[in-house]
Order: sequence, then C-alpha cells, then structure tokens
Amino acid sequence: MGAQSTLGVSFDPATSPIAADHPGVTDLFAVLAYGEISAFYRLAEEAKLSPTLRGKVAVAKMASAEMDHFKTLEAALAERGVEVFDAMAPFVRALDAYHASTDPSTWLESMVKFYVGDGIAADFYGEIAGALSPEVATVVHDVLAETSHSEFVVEEVRRAVSTSRSERDRLTLWGRRLLGEAITQAQYVMAQRDELTDLVLTATGDLNGIAALFERMQTSHAERMAVLGI
Amino acid sequence: MGAQSTLGVSFDPATSPIAADHPGVTDLFAVLAYGEISAFYRLAEEAKLSPTLRGKVAVAKMASAEMDHFKTLEAALAERGVEVFDAMAPFVRALDAYHASTDPSTWLESMVKFYVGDGIAADFYGEIAGALSPEVATVVHDVLAETSHSEFVVEEVRRAVSTSRSERDRLTLWGRRLLGEAITQAQYVMAQRDELTDLVLTATGDLNGIAALFERMQTSHAERMAVLGI
Repeated sequence: MGAQSTLGVSFDPATSPIAADHPGVTDLFAVLAYGEISAFYRLAEEAKLSPTLRGKVAVAKMASAEMDHFKTLEAALAERGVEVFDAMAPFVRALDAYHASTDPSTWLESMVKFYVGDGIAADFYGEIAGALSPEVATVVHDVLAETSHSEFVVEEVRRAVSTSRSERDRLTLWGRRLLGEAITQAQYVMAQRDELTDLVLTATGDLNGIAALFERMQTSHAERMAVLGI
Repeated sequence: MGAQSTLGVSFDPATSPIAADHPGVTDLFAVLAYGEISAFYRLAEEAKLSPTLRGKVAVAKMASAEMDHFKTLEAALAERGVEVFDAMAPFVRALDAYHASTDPSTWLESMVKFYVGDGIAADFYGEIAGALSPEVATVVHDVLAETSHSEFVVEEVRRAVSTSRSERDRLTLWGRRLLGEAITQAQYVMAQRDELTDLVLTATGDLNGIAALFERMQTSHAERMAVLGI
C-alpha cells in the first residue's frame, strides 16, 4: 500500500494522512464550496420543472442543505486565512460548464441528476477524504452528508421507468452523460490546478490510483443507476 | 385595553394570550410556511439579477434561512396533527399574486424588496405574536429571526441612491408599491379565512385595532425606507 506522491514523499496513506497544511487542501475546500453554490442555484432553477409543490419543497430543502455546507467550507477556509470568493474563482468555469452541459429538460432528468450527481461527488470526495488528516476529512465528510435528501427521487424515477421503456432508455443515456461530463470537468480542473492534482495523486497513490478510483466510481455509478431501475 | 373578539370573548391581550388551540393558529403557521417557500424561490430567481457572486451567495444564504423557518413551521403544524401541504393550499394564490405584482426588474429593486418585504412581514406577524400564547409566539418569533441577512442591502442601496436622483425617485415609488401590494394581499387573505381573521382581530382588539396596526406598519416602513436613503 506504500505510495509515491509527486512531491516525492513515500508513505502509507492508511497510517500517514496528508497533512492539513498541504496547499491542495485550500483548493479542495474551494472547489467544494463553489460546487455547493452552483448546486444551490441549479436546484432552485430545476425545481421549476417539478409538477408539484411537494417536489419543489423537497428540492428547496436539498438546496438549503447545500448552503449549510457552503457555510462550513467558508469557515474552514477562513480558519486557513483564505477568503472564500478568491479561492473559488478558479473553479467557476469548470463547474458552470458541467451544469451547462447537463441542463435537464424534464423533471425526471432533473431528479436523476440530483441523485446521480450527489452520488458521484460523494464517491470522489469521500475517497480523497480517506487519505486526509482527520481535521480536514471531517470538513469533507460534513459537507457530503445529508445526501439522503435526494432519496425522494428513487421512488418517482422507478415508477416512471417501470411503465415506459423509452423513458428508461432515455434516462440510461442521460445517466451516462452525467458521469462522463463530471469526469471531463474533473480532469479539466486537475490539468489547471497543480496543488489540487498533487493532493489527489497523493491520496490515490499515483496515476494508476486515479484510474482505479475512476473505475470504482463507474461501478458505484452503475449500482446507483440500478437502484433507479435504469 | 379590554378587547372584544368576534368570538365574543372579552379579555385583555396583555394578560390573556390567545390560546394555542385557537383554530386560526393553524392558518397563521400555514401562511407563514407558504411565505417561506415562495420567498425561497423568489430569492433564488432574483439572485440572477446580482452582478456579483458575492451578492448571489448573500441571497442564497437568505433563501436557505427561509427553508430553516419552513421546517420549523412544518414541525409545528405536524404537532397540531396538520399536514403542511394541505394547510398551505389556501394561501398559494395570494402570496403568488404578491410576488407576481412585485417582480423586480433590477438588482436594486430586488434588494429593496428583500429588505422592505422582510420588515413588513416582521412588523405584521411580530405584532400578532405579541398576543399569542408563549408556545405559539415562540414559533412565530423563531421564523421571523435571522432577518439580519438582508442587512447587506443597506449599504449597496444607500450608495446607489446617493449618486442618482432618478434612481432614488424610482425606488421610492417601488417601496410604496411593495407596502401597498402586501396590504392588498393581506386583506384578500383575511376576507377568505374566517379563523385567521378572528385571530388577527382578537390579537389587535377589533377593526380599529387592525387599522392602527396598519398605521404603525406604515410608520415603520417609512423608517426602513429612510435607512435605505429613499
């Protein structure tokens, strides 16, 4: 399990967590923070597609949870002496591009995006958190929590796809696109941000470790799609 | 200070609070609950007018606080054995009409609406809460709290109106319209909902008491406008 980071420090991630002062941690908090803001506004926008007030309220609760997470990250960055708006700036383009390229046209697509998007983010950041020092990992785990809000979609999506083969086919393609676009944008971010990339490489071991992480994410994604019946 | 309610019960509101089982309390919680939901979506929508990410984040925090308040009201209604969606239904039309008739066309109008709208609601419900039993009043005060989020608008609006006479005139008219529409819709709701109207009459004393309340609200509104420099 020994791993060679690009900084040239050999260690076992299970026993030697990445130090809290690794410069990539600021980037990690910042990309998570802008992720929360962009998710908030996307959720609020996509809730318009909901045919019921009940659906709108469920989405508003999810959006509100994103803002709680944002506040956690804003505070964690402030403790590091970093202003959240400065820190988020480099990630605006990639996250906006992800949302622009996965703009749902129906309430069902929207619901699949809530559920699948939450899952992809939880998989990726959860694995990275596993290699971080406890004080940093706690922040990451806190902001990945409460994804249970998106559970409400499972029943609605399952019902829709069980009665319509074409809907199921359409949503299957949609789900694949969500994962593809997420990985595309993650790679774009890593190509731009050396310190964040170093943190991810250190957390996963090396380039093979990143590839293995993406494979585990694909498996986990397929399992989530199966839960939705697609 | 003795007051005659439409139910024919004479009492002094200062020493005899309105009982928690007054049937108007359910309506009060329900109109507040739908108010939070509609404010949430309006805020999220109007934040698009913000020229900066900083403004968008400030608005997202306000919207998120509305959802916390909604959850408080949902729980308070559940304790009374009332389902929030059923209870909110009678108030959807009036609140949607308020927002439709006060749809801001600029970020400045939006900011004035956040600030002034919060203030109008806090004045009205705060006065009613004063006559309610402590367990009910606590819920109302809780959901009126945290309006400090809208304080961020004061500086921005003051700056804008200090440099533009026409902007000031425009926003002065806008502020008047906000109060006028709020009172129009409040009267519409009271004409429809006997139990809520009885609660408001009981809380304020009588029809003269309501008139006096609306006058105090106008004074308080003028003070808020002065704070904004309009």
